[in-house]
Amino acid sequence: MFKKVLNTLITTNVSFYLTYFKGIIAEQEGIIMINLPRGTQDILPGESERWQFVEQQFVNICKRYNYQEIRTPIFEHTELFQRGVGDTTDIVQKEMYTFEDRGGRSLTLRPEGTASVVRAFVQNKLYGAAIQPQKLFYNGPMFRYERPQQGRMRQFVQLGIEALGSADPAIDAEVIALAMNFYRGLGLSSLKLVINSLGDQESRLSHKRALIDHFNPYKAELCSDCQVRLEQNPLRVLDCKKDHDHPAMQSAPKILDFLTVEADHYFTKVRVYLDAMDIPYQVDPNLVRGLDYYNHTAFEIMSEAEGFGAITTLSGGGRYNGLVEDLGGQPTPGIGFALSVERLLMALEAEKIKLPIDQQLDCFIVALGAEAELKAVQIQDQLRLADIQVDKDYSGRKMKAQFKAADRLNAKHVIIIAEQELIDQQALVKDMVTGNQQLIGFEQIVDYMKEVL
Amino acid sequence: MFKKVLNTLITTNVSFYLTYFKGIIAEQEGIIMINLPRGTQDILPGESERWQFVEQQFVNICKRYNYQEIRTPIFEHTELFQRGVGDTTDIVQKEMYTFEDRGGRSLTLRPEGTASVVRAFVQNKLYGAAIQPQKLFYNGPMFRYERPQQGRMRQFVQLGIEALGSADPAIDAEVIALAMNFYRGLGLSSLKLVINSLGDQESRLSHKRALIDHFNPYKAELCSDCQVRLEQNPLRVLDCKKDHDHPAMQSAPKILDFLTVEADHYFTKVRVYLDAMDIPYQVDPNLVRGLDYYNHTAFEIMSEAEGFGAITTLSGGGRYNGLVEDLGGQPTPGIGFALSVERLLMALEAEKIKLPIDQQLDCFIVALGAEAELKAVQIQDQLRLADIQVDKDYSGRKMKAQFKAADRLNAKHVIIIAEQELIDQQALVKDMVTGNQQLIGFEQIVDYMKEVL
Repeated sequence: MFKKVLNTLITTNVSFYLTYFKGIIAEQEGIIMINLPRGTQDILPGESERWQFVEQQFVNICKRYNYQEIRTPIFEHTELFQRGVGDTTDIVQKEMYTFEDRGGRSLTLRPEGTASVVRAFVQNKLYGAAIQPQKLFYNGPMFRYERPQQGRMRQFVQLGIEALGSADPAIDAEVIALAMNFYRGLGLSSLKLVINSLGDQESRLSHKRALIDHFNPYKAELCSDCQVRLEQNPLRVLDCKKDHDHPAMQSAPKILDFLTVEADHYFTKVRVYLDAMDIPYQVDPNLVRGLDYYNHTAFEIMSEAEGFGAITTLSGGGRYNGLVEDLGGQPTPGIGFALSVERLLMALEAEKIKLPIDQQLDCFIVALGAEAELKAVQIQDQLRLADIQVDKDYSGRKMKAQFKAADRLNAKHVIIIAEQELIDQQALVKDMVTGNQQLIGFEQIVDYMKEVL
Repeated sequence: MFKKVLNTLITTNVSFYLTYFKGIIAEQEGIIMINLPRGTQDILPGESERWQFVEQQFVNICKRYNYQEIRTPIFEHTELFQRGVGDTTDIVQKEMYTFEDRGGRSLTLRPEGTASVVRAFVQNKLYGAAIQPQKLFYNGPMFRYERPQQGRMRQFVQLGIEALGSADPAIDAEVIALAMNFYRGLGLSSLKLVINSLGDQESRLSHKRALIDHFNPYKAELCSDCQVRLEQNPLRVLDCKKDHDHPAMQSAPKILDFLTVEADHYFTKVRVYLDAMDIPYQVDPNLVRGLDYYNHTAFEIMSEAEGFGAITTLSGGGRYNGLVEDLGGQPTPGIGFALSVERLLMALEAEKIKLPIDQQLDCFIVALGAEAELKAVQIQDQLRLADIQVDKDYSGRKMKAQFKAADRLNAKHVIIIAEQELIDQQALVKDMVTGNQQLIGFEQIVDYMKEVL
């Protein structure tokens, strides 16, 4: 095989050679195979049921909290994210999948959900809806061009909520409670919730000035990105990965010391509500979220499970009272959070939590001969119409191999139809757990199966 | 408003002017709003529940037929679709969203689901899995750059299944039955199923030769696309939209007259199985599917509901025995179908079918005063943990307005907490249907609500 690959490389032209090393094409028995793009994944049967389960649980909890689903397009006009996520963020500067469509529009695969939901809120005039606040949830793929690693894919799935139209600290607490109770409901216990307040505009402005004063003496020692950030958005210096250990970081002025009376009062109320709901948290004055649009409440939930991996953040969110206006709407307060399904599944694994997923099949039909096959198709169809899961052989297998197939599918019951059964117009139904078997007339099979299942 | 737009246009620079007319930006009260890309849509609360419902029904029927979910990436290497959908198809030539990522790879947003599923089958070696055939389903957005119209969006959602590894005509019939029974299960009755056989390789070759002989005398009268098609893939001439009415179309040789004995026998068996399952169908010898990879069974399901619209096709599918090999796998037979959710919802509307969607809320808490608000947050949290849907006011509304909010949310019960209730440590619970109301101690509310709901 390796020799074959080598030969191919030697005899082939340069363009193919290059393509090959970009990892696009693999060779298999002389036929060229196409692999999936780097940083993406296939979710296969056996694994997809776990995705279905956690997503369904998310839909359920959203319904309990009265959040309704919104679906926005996979791509948006690029400008939406430049304005809605922030021109100075890594996401916009380095990580977006941006392209022109055939009509010359600059489009971008959404890197996160909030900007799109807010765009939809403005465009569809949801601020004028009878029900306020608008409490929305979403579920879908997001895209960021990053170096792929465990828990960080280029295509990843986010579940999130947004509550638009309320500046009540009780809704900040509700959003956090929904996130925490979703995880707890799935059985996770090694959770850490950290919260912070980023204050209102006035608080942020004072803090910003203090940050510039604080970091300016060390400017030359900071990374080139941070030197720019210090000019554009000094708050972003605080979550730089490169300068994380610089001594000036520890002593940097904290936003909590710059909160106005109103912002401080708001933050206090959020905590009182969290206490009332028995949601334990830590205040982390260093917590700044990666996106530009946050103010007041910010939070992150981490997994503290052993062996969970280097990236411990499961989800994060916060308040963004200026975003709706930035995107062309009336001033409207908003708050939301998003969680990564990939990391949630990793956390469940780290805590060895088995999800209650039924991997059994109600019934498998074993049939021998063309006439029996026809009868099997008919009975199978009747059972399925009666809401029973059924499968049969589609590979012309002998009886023994058909039983093996039933076994591999964890069939609870096997229905056997061969020559004699056709003559007698009845099938042998075998309970695979007890081993009991019984002859049932073809006409009675649906009723019988309904009874025993 | 119009004058304002005009002023903007006159005073602004050319690049903005162009952008404006591409429909990207709308103006609202002086703030620039960003709209969603052309040919895409937002699915809002009120509508999203219908999507959830039909998708959940699809998952349910797939489970009954023992199909498991597979999820593939939103984009793939462009070459996958060039090879897997076919270089000569309109999709590949005109309709794909193709772009380069930051690493210089040519990627394409998937225009359909089959090529990706087959790619995943090959790459993940599912041909070697213990369970055969592999019966897979998918649910997700697809992308085609077409002129948007009702029932044809640039981003649209397909639900589909693929059965890989069986050449048993019974599984062709199963795939068709699943599609039909899915629609029937939702209540649709004005359905038309048409089937055809595209034969095996030998049948197709004879037919192809006959088609070339037949159309060659009229070549100059055909559209330029068809002139190319006649060289590359004459079968595609038959589904040309422009030449649809050319007299040579009617008299063109039909594939059914060129079937080999084996292909004819295969098609007969498919029909026998459909008859056994009471699936009515018409044989349409003109049915050719738009994609290159089909052979043997091809089918389409149409809505015959009045006022359904110009595009009547709800779904289509067929057999593609060569595709796995074309994409670098071992020769493996396959069959599948895909349906459009948009058109399904249109068909449901045309037949005036009301889906059984519960739009009620279990419970709304009306609270007055800061202390009552805190108690309300606490009780709301307890109810939600007990799997009860609850909401409350987050806008500082007066009592009357809170009742109105409860009404708009169709709340079945309203729980009232004001000054006196706090003193007595009990809430007034009102059944909004019967009008009955009862005082319940704070500690007993969860149990009480569980009982009455």
